[in-house]
Amino acid sequence: MTEPTAVIEPISPAAVAELRALLDGPHAEVRRYTREVLCGLDLPAADGLDRDAYRDQVLEWLKGVAKTGAGSRSFPSRYGGESDAGGSIAGFQTLGHGDLSLLVKVGVQFGLFGGAVHRLGTEKHHARYLADIASVELPGAFAMSESSHGSDVRSIRTIARYDAEDREFVIHTPAEENRKDWIGNAARHGKVAVVFAQLDVAGEARGVHAFVVPLRDDDGNLLDGVEIEDCGDKMGLQGVDNGRIRFSAVRIPRENLLDRYGTVDDDGSYRSSIDSPGARFFTMIGALVQGRISIAGAGIAVARNALTIAVRWGERRRQFGTGLDMDTPLMDYLTHQRRLLPAIAESFALQAAHDHLTAEYARVVGEEETGTEEQRAVESLAAGLKAVSTWHMLRAVQDARECCGGKGYLAENRFASLRNDSDVFVTFEGDNTVLLQLVAKTLLSEYASQFEDLDAVGMARTLSTRQISRWLSETGPLGRFTRDDVELRDGAWQAQTLRFREERLVDSLARRLRRLTSSEGMDPLRALSHCQDHALAAATAHIERIVHEQFAARVAEHEGEAREALDRLRDLYALSVVERGRAWWLEHGYLEPDAAKELQKEVNTLCRELRPSALGLVEAFGIPDALLRAPIGMTSPAAEQHSGAGTD
Amino acid sequence: MTEPTAVIEPISPAAVAELRALLDGPHAEVRRYTREVLCGLDLPAADGLDRDAYRDQVLEWLKGVAKTGAGSRSFPSRYGGESDAGGSIAGFQTLGHGDLSLLVKVGVQFGLFGGAVHRLGTEKHHARYLADIASVELPGAFAMSESSHGSDVRSIRTIARYDAEDREFVIHTPAEENRKDWIGNAARHGKVAVVFAQLDVAGEARGVHAFVVPLRDDDGNLLDGVEIEDCGDKMGLQGVDNGRIRFSAVRIPRENLLDRYGTVDDDGSYRSSIDSPGARFFTMIGALVQGRISIAGAGIAVARNALTIAVRWGERRRQFGTGLDMDTPLMDYLTHQRRLLPAIAESFALQAAHDHLTAEYARVVGEEETGTEEQRAVESLAAGLKAVSTWHMLRAVQDARECCGGKGYLAENRFASLRNDSDVFVTFEGDNTVLLQLVAKTLLSEYASQFEDLDAVGMARTLSTRQISRWLSETGPLGRFTRDDVELRDGAWQAQTLRFREERLVDSLARRLRRLTSSEGMDPLRALSHCQDHALAAATAHIERIVHEQFAARVAEHEGEAREALDRLRDLYALSVVERGRAWWLEHGYLEPDAAKELQKEVNTLCRELRPSALGLVEAFGIPDALLRAPIGMTSPAAEQHSGAGTD
Repeated sequence: MTEPTAVIEPISPAAVAELRALLDGPHAEVRRYTREVLCGLDLPAADGLDRDAYRDQVLEWLKGVAKTGAGSRSFPSRYGGESDAGGSIAGFQTLGHGDLSLLVKVGVQFGLFGGAVHRLGTEKHHARYLADIASVELPGAFAMSESSHGSDVRSIRTIARYDAEDREFVIHTPAEENRKDWIGNAARHGKVAVVFAQLDVAGEARGVHAFVVPLRDDDGNLLDGVEIEDCGDKMGLQGVDNGRIRFSAVRIPRENLLDRYGTVDDDGSYRSSIDSPGARFFTMIGALVQGRISIAGAGIAVARNALTIAVRWGERRRQFGTGLDMDTPLMDYLTHQRRLLPAIAESFALQAAHDHLTAEYARVVGEEETGTEEQRAVESLAAGLKAVSTWHMLRAVQDARECCGGKGYLAENRFASLRNDSDVFVTFEGDNTVLLQLVAKTLLSEYASQFEDLDAVGMARTLSTRQISRWLSETGPLGRFTRDDVELRDGAWQAQTLRFREERLVDSLARRLRRLTSSEGMDPLRALSHCQDHALAAATAHIERIVHEQFAARVAEHEGEAREALDRLRDLYALSVVERGRAWWLEHGYLEPDAAKELQKEVNTLCRELRPSALGLVEAFGIPDALLRAPIGMTSPAAEQHSGAGTD
Repeated sequence: MTEPTAVIEPISPAAVAELRALLDGPHAEVRRYTREVLCGLDLPAADGLDRDAYRDQVLEWLKGVAKTGAGSRSFPSRYGGESDAGGSIAGFQTLGHGDLSLLVKVGVQFGLFGGAVHRLGTEKHHARYLADIASVELPGAFAMSESSHGSDVRSIRTIARYDAEDREFVIHTPAEENRKDWIGNAARHGKVAVVFAQLDVAGEARGVHAFVVPLRDDDGNLLDGVEIEDCGDKMGLQGVDNGRIRFSAVRIPRENLLDRYGTVDDDGSYRSSIDSPGARFFTMIGALVQGRISIAGAGIAVARNALTIAVRWGERRRQFGTGLDMDTPLMDYLTHQRRLLPAIAESFALQAAHDHLTAEYARVVGEEETGTEEQRAVESLAAGLKAVSTWHMLRAVQDARECCGGKGYLAENRFASLRNDSDVFVTFEGDNTVLLQLVAKTLLSEYASQFEDLDAVGMARTLSTRQISRWLSETGPLGRFTRDDVELRDGAWQAQTLRFREERLVDSLARRLRRLTSSEGMDPLRALSHCQDHALAAATAHIERIVHEQFAARVAEHEGEAREALDRLRDLYALSVVERGRAWWLEHGYLEPDAAKELQKEVNTLCRELRPSALGLVEAFGIPDALLRAPIGMTSPAAEQHSGAGTD
């Protein structure tokens, strides 16, 4: 057992600057500019406004953000944009350091509403709407979810019947349970909505399509046939005007169909470039994957806010009378380090994976061809990273709040709003559990196609990896991964360990499903539901493997003063992931008990090694005091006193 | 692998009634009455009041509760009480189903303030104050914590200097960091406070004592020398007027010292029945252990609220389009069952341990002798059960909220207030991490005394148990606990498994500390800090063993229709505890990998077996709709519609 006694120096300012540049990544300029804009909004210290005033304030902020071009960044250049999906996602993430109602309002207006017009509409819609969307001249809603169908868009029942005579669509809510629910921008500010409905042309069902439907006139009065009610008080995000919408035979002109993937011709006939209604549906939904990528990024940002506050307070706050020095900062306690430092390492690692996902998304989103394997891979990673990042966020915020004790319970220190505003991230834009099942389904279909499509060589290669895995598990402990042999700080060992778990879990899930469906005659989806915990474990293992892979690659190519800290962060990420799931590796004969124990000690050792750099690591998150707004989390104690938080 | 196909009947109404009686326990009548009183308060559906109005409302409710005798239940009968500490704790727990600001206000007024006067004061104080405290004629505060000393009362620095000439104490706050902080009832309603301060008699420091110090006159104006500021907005509990108090040489008469354990005589000399200042201090603090027991109980109640709402909604809400029936309730999904049913089992198990703790406390609290071994055991269990119960609460509330998706994010469904009001339970009345360290210290001192004090026979017995443990770990897997041999549903096997972990962890912690302090010459407390994660694991293992033991004993003596469900709940509690910590048993050669896998399958099987009874189990929690106040969590859908939550 190693008990480090050598003093480890804190990370240097130059290394902190390197880490910050690494985190800011390829869109550093967008991030810098977004921070500046946010600081200029003069966000209030705590939420004191009443609901309507807060919402109107958020609309004003939204217009301020729009003036900076943030709203049109991903739009084509002829509508003031830069066709820069990556920059748009990076800017959105940076908004996660500010007011989260503003973040969500930006997401609704530019991402969901604007994104739908952009991605699902055609030239005529772009010309008519995009500039006004980008300037917030036209505040709009994205009306997809229905009360009865949160996570299952294909089953929505709002109807869009084509009236060939008048060349109009008739939008109608057939039943109370099919009202559009949780629609941002609906309750107060939206003038129009993109409404998702089942298209009916001449009595034939054509599947889900999107339509631009006016909601309010210029004076803000609801139009005939449109009924909207407020969703009411929420846990957080009070600055977002979520509402419920009912349509009673609302008529809209034919050109209001967003018809990139399916259109109704002059002669009233339906035409689509995608033959299969299933493929068409997934193409339309797939085009909206940016929302999930954006929320994943925002989740990472929110975790950073909380960790920054907790580390600064843990460094400042002294615990007296414990028998140690009278002057021991909380951060010197092992439990404190264990709650905060692995979460910091995870925030770094997730950022690398998020940058990778963003780049991949930006690369494939503009492609004419749809439904490609690469696009599906991006969709699956977006779903999985959204789930993993937002659950990381919830854990980090809660641990950070507990680390701040009573101070963390005061509203002024912002944990209340950070947590309450972000809590919905784990269930909206796809419930995390449902998203991980989606990842599992993709893994299973990749698994199946691997064996169907591979040529002989590829097959052999794949099998040999799998055979090793199986051999390991069937022969029990090999003695290779005992205390003396594990290479805990070897990136290759870490990668192999995470990959072993992923492959074994997918493999055993596939075999189990095969048995249930063939031998026991179970319906495939019922079988998947029966193995739901197994599927979620496989999906999580897949995402954690990718996160490590991406972060390790980033670390490997880094040359500079920060390299030592980065190595430790990568090690701490990998080892804490393996530590929390170590039972699985023990059960599958991959780790021997003494290696598993060694691993836990190594996490402690890494925590102690990174502890002197804790302040530097959160400094690298780059969150200005004006955005953090927590008296206990300010850069200097002077700022804290100035803010009136007292001197304790 | 067992894949149950047989249909399992839901629990019968008679069995539900039995479970409810079991949970209500020996103080059923107090609980029934408290529910009735709470329902009579007509609690609002959601928190719409502004802060001051809400606080005044809570004061009115407090007076309403006082009229029922709740405030004096633990006081001696001559002051209107029943000397019924157990009933007092049970009534407090039941308040956890209502408004949590009221709960905390009750705790402050009757438990902390009243409890201090009762336990630390003598006859003259009882005669003068107790009746007025019980009626809330005299609202009071409990001023112990200082800004710089949250968890460490011995280091407070507020001074109480005895002025022998005027026969008065002079109460003084020496520095800003020693203001009394987070004091409930201070910011708005308190007329007096019990203030903890370092007693100085003729220049000699006598340690921490408690004093009754007036704060406000009858018109609510602050008295000379008393400065109070509001703590400001909090994450929750806005109905509690927490404040910060500074004293500038405030003079109080000699009789205001609560002098049960130490007094100043007529001639100005100090006298105490307890010689050692250390022992005296712990006696005074120990007398306040009821607060921790009470919060542990309230935490269990809050978890029940959340689980009731989530189960009812999971039963009502249908998930469409998953390929299963169109009509599949969320509760039919394994992930849903896994998030809710083990938490329900834990709520039952924790209640049994809490009832045991309450009975033990009621038995020893009245004893004249102080600092006995039994009293220390109660203090340690109170500390540990408070930590374990309130973390259980946070997990249960969060899982329940996520299981309710968007509905769970609406304020009307109460997860926001349940979580925000209760979040502070994990860090107040002793931070959970600090409390578990306290448990670990007690375990270590028991461990040490076992070897010092035991006679030869006892020593041999103890050693043989320990030797078995050590032998198991040193020889590796024995083949006894493989898949075919584990008796997962055998209570004795479960008890042995939990005890094995506890003993091994305490044993290895003790040996590790011995090594650090003797071989490496580390200061004992620094050594404990170095092994902090180990200490917390040992403490948690100790508490979980006791929880299982108490619940298993309760189940074993139950005869009736509910026995089958109770057996399953005990099994699910035990197996899910072992499952989440199974890495440890794998690492210590207690479980073989295949046994650990079997255990996870058995948790799934138990979830499926209990699933038809989910509604019945939460019905047994016995929370009236008028208290639950969540439209999605009402007993019948009619109630939901009536409340305006719509029909989805």
